Amino acid sequence: MNKVVTFGEVLMRIAPLGNKKLKQTNQLEYYFGGTEANVAISLSQLGNQTQHVSVVSDDFIGDAAKGFLQKFGVNTHSIYSSQHPLGLYFLEVGAVMRSSTITYNRKHSAFSNIDPKQIDWHKVLEDCRWFHWTGITPALSLNAYQALKDGLTIASQKGIPISADPAYRSDLWNYGKDAREVLNELVKLSTIFIGGPNEINELLDTKFLYKNDDFIKGSKQLIEKHPNIKKVFDKTRNSINANWHKIQARMWNGSEFLETNELEITHVIDRIGTGDAYAAGLIHGLLHYDDTKALQFANAACAIKHTIEGDANLATEREIINIIEGNLSGRIIR
Amino acid sequence: MNKVVTFGEVLMRIAPLGNKKLKQTNQLEYYFGGTEANVAISLSQLGNQTQHVSVVSDDFIGDAAKGFLQKFGVNTHSIYSSQHPLGLYFLEVGAVMRSSTITYNRKHSAFSNIDPKQIDWHKVLEDCRWFHWTGITPALSLNAYQALKDGLTIASQKGIPISADPAYRSDLWNYGKDAREVLNELVKLSTIFIGGPNEINELLDTKFLYKNDDFIKGSKQLIEKHPNIKKVFDKTRNSINANWHKIQARMWNGSEFLETNELEITHVIDRIGTGDAYAAGLIHGLLHYDDTKALQFANAACAIKHTIEGDANLATEREIINIIEGNLSGRIIR
Amino acid sequence: MNKVVTFGEVLMRIAPLGNKKLKQTNQLEYYFGGTEANVAISLSQLGNQTQHVSVVSDDFIGDAAKGFLQKFGVNTHSIYSSQHPLGLYFLEVGAVMRSSTITYNRKHSAFSNIDPKQIDWHKVLEDCRWFHWTGITPALSLNAYQALKDGLTIASQKGIPISADPAYRSDLWNYGKDAREVLNELVKLSTIFIGGPNEINELLDTKFLYKNDDFIKGSKQLIEKHPNIKKVFDKTRNSINANWHKIQARMWNGSEFLETNELEITHVIDRIGTGDAYAAGLIHGLLHYDDTKALQFANAACAIKHTIEGDANLATEREIINIIEGNLSGRIIR
Amino acid sequence: MNKVVTFGEVLMRIAPLGNKKLKQTNQLEYYFGGTEANVAISLSQLGNQTQHVSVVSDDFIGDAAKGFLQKFGVNTHSIYSSQHPLGLYFLEVGAVMRSSTITYNRKHSAFSNIDPKQIDWHKVLEDCRWFHWTGITPALSLNAYQALKDGLTIASQKGIPISADPAYRSDLWNYGKDAREVLNELVKLSTIFIGGPNEINELLDTKFLYKNDDFIKGSKQLIEKHPNIKKVFDKTRNSINANWHKIQARMWNGSEFLETNELEITHVIDRIGTGDAYAAGLIHGLLHYDDTKALQFANAACAIKHTIEGDANLATEREIINIIEGNLSGRIIR
Amino acid sequence: MNKVVTFGEVLMRIAPLGNKKLKQTNQLEYYFGGTEANVAISLSQLGNQTQHVSVVSDDFIGDAAKGFLQKFGVNTHSIYSSQHPLGLYFLEVGAVMRSSTITYNRKHSAFSNIDPKQIDWHKVLEDCRWFHWTGITPALSLNAYQALKDGLTIASQKGIPISADPAYRSDLWNYGKDAREVLNELVKLSTIFIGGPNEINELLDTKFLYKNDDFIKGSKQLIEKHPNIKKVFDKTRNSINANWHKIQARMWNGSEFLETNELEITHVIDRIGTGDAYAAGLIHGLLHYDDTKALQFANAACAIKHTIEGDANLATEREIINIIEGNLSGRIIR
Amino acid sequence: MNKVVTFGEVLMRIAPLGNKKLKQTNQLEYYFGGTEANVAISLSQLGNQTQHVSVVSDDFIGDAAKGFLQKFGVNTHSIYSSQHPLGLYFLEVGAVMRSSTITYNRKHSAFSNIDPKQIDWHKVLEDCRWFHWTGITPALSLNAYQALKDGLTIASQKGIPISADPAYRSDLWNYGKDAREVLNELVKLSTIFIGGPNEINELLDTKFLYKNDDFIKGSKQLIEKHPNIKKVFDKTRNSINANWHKIQARMWNGSEFLETNELEITHVIDRIGTGDAYAAGLIHGLLHYDDTKALQFANAACAIKHTIEGDANLATEREIINIIEGNLSGRIIR
Repeated sequence: MNKVVTFGEVLMRIAPLGNKKLKQTNQLEYYFGGTEANVAISLSQLGNQTQHVSVVSDDFIGDAAKGFLQKFGVNTHSIYSSQHPLGLYFLEVGAVMRSSTITYNRKHSAFSNIDPKQIDWHKVLEDCRWFHWTGITPALSLNAYQALKDGLTIASQKGIPISADPAYRSDLWNYGKDAREVLNELVKLSTIFIGGPNEINELLDTKFLYKNDDFIKGSKQLIEKHPNIKKVFDKTRNSINANWHKIQARMWNGSEFLETNELEITHVIDRIGTGDAYAAGLIHGLLHYDDTKALQFANAACAIKHTIEGDANLATEREIINIIEGNLSGRIIR
Repeated sequence: MNKVVTFGEVLMRIAPLGNKKLKQTNQLEYYFGGTEANVAISLSQLGNQTQHVSVVSDDFIGDAAKGFLQKFGVNTHSIYSSQHPLGLYFLEVGAVMRSSTITYNRKHSAFSNIDPKQIDWHKVLEDCRWFHWTGITPALSLNAYQALKDGLTIASQKGIPISADPAYRSDLWNYGKDAREVLNELVKLSTIFIGGPNEINELLDTKFLYKNDDFIKGSKQLIEKHPNIKKVFDKTRNSINANWHKIQARMWNGSEFLETNELEITHVIDRIGTGDAYAAGLIHGLLHYDDTKALQFANAACAIKHTIEGDANLATEREIINIIEGNLSGRIIR
Repeated sequence: MNKVVTFGEVLMRIAPLGNKKLKQTNQLEYYFGGTEANVAISLSQLGNQTQHVSVVSDDFIGDAAKGFLQKFGVNTHSIYSSQHPLGLYFLEVGAVMRSSTITYNRKHSAFSNIDPKQIDWHKVLEDCRWFHWTGITPALSLNAYQALKDGLTIASQKGIPISADPAYRSDLWNYGKDAREVLNELVKLSTIFIGGPNEINELLDTKFLYKNDDFIKGSKQLIEKHPNIKKVFDKTRNSINANWHKIQARMWNGSEFLETNELEITHVIDRIGTGDAYAAGLIHGLLHYDDTKALQFANAACAIKHTIEGDANLATEREIINIIEGNLSGRIIR
Repeated sequence: MNKVVTFGEVLMRIAPLGNKKLKQTNQLEYYFGGTEANVAISLSQLGNQTQHVSVVSDDFIGDAAKGFLQKFGVNTHSIYSSQHPLGLYFLEVGAVMRSSTITYNRKHSAFSNIDPKQIDWHKVLEDCRWFHWTGITPALSLNAYQALKDGLTIASQKGIPISADPAYRSDLWNYGKDAREVLNELVKLSTIFIGGPNEINELLDTKFLYKNDDFIKGSKQLIEKHPNIKKVFDKTRNSINANWHKIQARMWNGSEFLETNELEITHVIDRIGTGDAYAAGLIHGLLHYDDTKALQFANAACAIKHTIEGDANLATEREIINIIEGNLSGRIIR
Repeated sequence: MNKVVTFGEVLMRIAPLGNKKLKQTNQLEYYFGGTEANVAISLSQLGNQTQHVSVVSDDFIGDAAKGFLQKFGVNTHSIYSSQHPLGLYFLEVGAVMRSSTITYNRKHSAFSNIDPKQIDWHKVLEDCRWFHWTGITPALSLNAYQALKDGLTIASQKGIPISADPAYRSDLWNYGKDAREVLNELVKLSTIFIGGPNEINELLDTKFLYKNDDFIKGSKQLIEKHPNIKKVFDKTRNSINANWHKIQARMWNGSEFLETNELEITHVIDRIGTGDAYAAGLIHGLLHYDDTKALQFANAACAIKHTIEGDANLATEREIINIIEGNLSGRIIR
Repeated sequence: MNKVVTFGEVLMRIAPLGNKKLKQTNQLEYYFGGTEANVAISLSQLGNQTQHVSVVSDDFIGDAAKGFLQKFGVNTHSIYSSQHPLGLYFLEVGAVMRSSTITYNRKHSAFSNIDPKQIDWHKVLEDCRWFHWTGITPALSLNAYQALKDGLTIASQKGIPISADPAYRSDLWNYGKDAREVLNELVKLSTIFIGGPNEINELLDTKFLYKNDDFIKGSKQLIEKHPNIKKVFDKTRNSINANWHKIQARMWNGSEFLETNELEITHVIDRIGTGDAYAAGLIHGLLHYDDTKALQFANAACAIKHTIEGDANLATEREIINIIEGNLSGRIIR
């Protein structure tokens, strides 16, 4: 076996149906998600062996969370449980110019209270071909940060490719550590950087702008600082409104700049987890294709996620390749 | 306390889910609405004290109707009950070129059978800073007309600002009174007119067209006839189809013509009550802002209502201001 | 009575709600459909007498299927039942560039196992003013083919107008007969051909392209081969993606080429059965209007079906005429 | 054809799901019912030809009501439509000691406004083998009473058996006519009386008690007054609570008293329409069996209705015979 | 005005539908509850003025929680909000011998983090006729305990009757205070004790048994220790299984022992909140009736809650009186 | 690892909600089941390693079926897929004296068309501690029979304990083989027999009655014929009606007769799969406890399944032990 390992919090997402506000109904529906778990699910649907490492609550919520990952083929043998509750978030889905709203209840979650010593990283990383992490994890708590650093250190020693998605959220990072310092420390252990000018600015304390030139300059500067990083992948989004997006992917692979076509999603079904779909598409692409096709695959994976309900991309490799090949008309398949 | 008072029928709206026709399902969902109650709910969500005056059925339907208004913060102490049923309407929601269809069951409702003497208008209008009425009420029955006239007379005597939304529906007005005569009588007691060339034509028996010039001329002529009216507010709608609208607001404030930008709703969620959202936005704007911002606020309130299910606009002041500030991309708020 | 008769399989359609994948939910909804039954339902909603001939399962599924047709006014006296199960299909609804997926379970259905001798075609075709068939039926089984041929032969002898919609699906036709041979045999018994270059190519082994010139040439060649065919009707579809279609209709009536305006469906609600809606609209049009209006009616019927859930078009004649008259804004009808 | 004809209002029943109160949810489900329509549906499910005569609203509600009857095989050719709304009722379902609550909205319904001259009773009653009416109809309005009297007069002249279920509801009868007088007039035209001491007391102004002796005495006295009545059928109910009932049927056939076993419904699913199920079972029984079996069939039909959702009994003859044969264990049938 | 004041956490309850386990579905429904809020809602439904004091989250969950209370008529002017999440619990509903399971997520909730100084108890308790508290509140956190003690002290000084429901849950009480010490301190400020041998044992460190004699002895001993307590109210429950309960109420009013009849709930709809229904019934009874009727009312209120979904009793005074009068058959009310 | 292996068809169960008939609604819900898969799921929930061997359809239905098993922890590496559809059944749920009705669509399923050579039984049965089969499998098709025989032969050679549940259904067995002959052949390879007088009579062509004496005599005679069988386990059911059952278990362990207490299920939630719950409970019991406790565990597992929706028992070991310990009151667990 040759698996991809992800590490991070599993979150329960609870939302009223359709575009209703919570106050308008007594009905809810739920999914399980969490940025790294989403990547694992998507990679599993694409045909890869995956294992997710996490801590869930020791109750029927945590049990259901594990079952959810198993349903989609993710190995859950390294998902531990504790007396703390599972992190969750509530979502009210907006439309057009009305924003969706998310409210979190994750601060004292089972994952934030993770005991770093609980994880046997040597065993988890046996037979591992890729490790993926995001900046959400070290933002949650000292314990989560420590556990991630342990994993990254060992993975790095084993020479496992490591993708870093250092998504910076200023509302997290409440436990005392400095975000920039921590993220630089962890990116130093990684080999693939998923992020654009915003993320680079956060790491390097620079002021690069959104445009391609700046993306290239920023990428070069990042690689200069962290030479272990070999490639930088970004995606750009043009939101006409909450229901109508255009997306495009770009990369600096150390020597050249690549960019995909723009894909237009005229009727967004679910916006959440599209970045995770991009990351999963990218990892799959880098494992199976060349850079150009990997970038296209990541972009197409991101695009199709907008049409899938829930947090995780459930598209198959065939569906995504189909988009790369230009089949965008969505004809019925019988 | 300094409340806005509205007066009118509370209607129950019953509809199959999504775009289904009644024949296609055994499932329904309901909201409570009614044009004036919608205004009260929206004003309450915007942070204003509100009281709605009405009559509902003396059964669990009427009780639920009151509970619905209370949930959204509307004072229901002057909602009476009687042995007649609550008015209701059924809705089948169309799409694109297929019209939504509404069928009413309100003719013999609790509100139509209102006893005008039941309402203690002096008490209701104590501490009232605004009174809002629409042309639906006097169209329903002689009793409803009489009750409204009583309220308007007292409010006018007290110098309370009064907004008139004389929405003319020819299929109502079956009890013998002449619509034009009655509406002129009631507009004469009002200070703000919500309507455009159509409504002005109905009142003045004129033939003004849709365009801005005619709107200005009509407004002037209306104010000439009813000098108590200080400002005339209108909104214009360009419906590409049932799912795709563009709206814009305009006003004649007695001395100058103002017009907002056009707002585009590419994916309409619920078309019903958007006029009421406009009226509520306008009242809120006139109570808190200058004319220009009030007009923008009304237009933005109308726009965002298209993204909200049910009859009433539940948007917050923050969400509406956000639109005025040009943030139309509907980004997720975490 | 003067009825339209249709003959074909009644299928149960089962699907998760909204855009969910089956794996994401335990909830399903169902409709009954089947291409010829859809035509019967639509014609019934348009005010025509209809009778559908079929075989369903002798259980509560078959009973519900008959009830479904009866609800919409279709006569079911010639729907027989047998010990075999009702054919069914599962549907996952896609969006934008994600295709909807259909998986069938019809191979050993009650209809495929039809006993041709069971149908008393002379009685069924008494008082019949139109007979409609599609190429799905002879593709299913030898028995289905034989039963259809019997019906067509008798209908043809009685001089009943016969519309042929020889929709060719290569994944069917597994019982040994050659599709081209069979379809030519059956088209020879028909008077109206519903199809374009693709269908003509399949019948004549030609290579006509999509464009109008080729459509005209192909139609002429088809009529040359099958002079009983008087008119050829086609529709063309431009799918921007799964949610956004543009459709147009064209015909060769033996002497001239006619074409409708393009109708744009910016927010597709349900794509399935739109071809059947076209066929039903066409039959209704040919029974009640001239060619030009019939073509427009077929195109408008097809367009409005995209806004209706389920397999069958439930639009009324009034709604469709409304579209022909250019009223595309979908205003609420109260 | 040899049909059973029923005449009466079709009502829409709207209720929250399960045991919820309206205030607790925004979801509803609906059925169509009405006491006489329920009898027609049940008789149709039992294999009899049926036709229901009524007036519904000329909108999508009325259309759905007709479709509902058609789905269950009831002929709707004599269901007219008018501009008045369809009658409806809301239901909150109780449990154990909590009563279900019903609130009606039927006073100004399409049926109450029926035009008696609209019905061509001679045509309706052609080929009719049974006519069924209830005391709800003459209680609704003068017009409804007049229409029913017309029908009964003609049916009586034609020698058609007529079952009368003079269910007396004091809260109806608001249009000026005296209930007792009217009901006696209509029972005089009937041949089968469905009712017990309560109903007899209402007609004869007597004070018979619940017990069998009184039932027999009352029946005799009723037949003495209305010698056209040949048989009197009653059912008795012992309600432990809203979820647990025991029922039993009894009759006086003019010469002897018959009584069935008691049937126990330990888990009531839906209490509504169980009386109509009894009436339908009785009519079916009298058409096909002897008195003893007819009475058993009526009682078993009533019992099984308690296990079926909605207003009408959908049980088959086989299911009801099964109960008579003592198979009460409810084993799964595969 | 003369209101009842309650103080405590508002909890959101989230559960799969029916008897499903979370793992079996993606659908949930929710209610708001919390033991003291349930009492406020029930008292409001019974016709009393009520005000609930609490802290909720400053997001759409907290807003919906307030709206929920307002819908049922509870004054929410003293419900504050904070950045902490609303407490919630998940529920899987069992049946027969399968227990329902509840898992809480309330430890770091908005209410647990209450700032005692935030509450202006003098203002809240103006015009207050009754104050109710439970042992859940002081078990949650030091702040909650302190806030409650402040309120009780002032209420006690004002001579307001105070009901104590010192429900002891050993799994709470994690913040360092001793349960017995705290509860005795707070009971000392109260006038009515709701509890039986278990609760008395917890307070007095005694070993009284379930039987009536022990209840009387224990009550006497409790009053001896806390002479401010005038009456002790208990309820006893005999659970045949999760769906079938029998309940009975008893009291020691300082001089005599009273006991109600047993009420049997053969089909439990919702077990949760039945104790709160008892408390609310008791408070209503003590405010409006004598001891005997108050006890009967509490018992009947508790019984009928078993038939109502959600956490709070929504029964009316009329429905409860009906049970006291022995009407247990649950007949439909039209 | 030390797994239990099951082999058999995975079926999709589709049903209207609650007690509705298919005709009454457009909503369905589904589960996956199948008698042997149910055993695997239950054993997995009880904490055992399990692997299910089967063939599913190569489409999103088959994919969802595998995901369903994975969610509950069952290893699906030996579930193959083919072009044939997944077997399914529709269910209408009865109540009280109304039977539930099931209609199957499995005759030409993926499993019936299994290719016996596809299964590598040697690999599957490595590290296997128990093999379970039922009489459904050899009844379906020659291929299914052959595949099962292959598996049993190898398991028997490996000395793996084998439980046989030869449930005889006369409506299956249509492919030409004689049921008795086949079942005897397969029982001969097994070590544990699950069945009572009915199943023994079917195998031995005897006429044993239901009573204990006959069960003992029959068991002895069976063991005489098949001395490999060491123990015979049976369960008896007393169905008051569809909602109220009493069950009891008994065994002949080769030397003594054991019998459990009767367990009463007064409110059955779901009757389906209770036999599979018994089998799974038995296997778990025999793997972990002595005969007496194993029999009690099987009976309690069967009982609690009646309270769980879907086909498979999801109860935990703790919940079942709780029943054995006499805790039947179903108190809420917090």
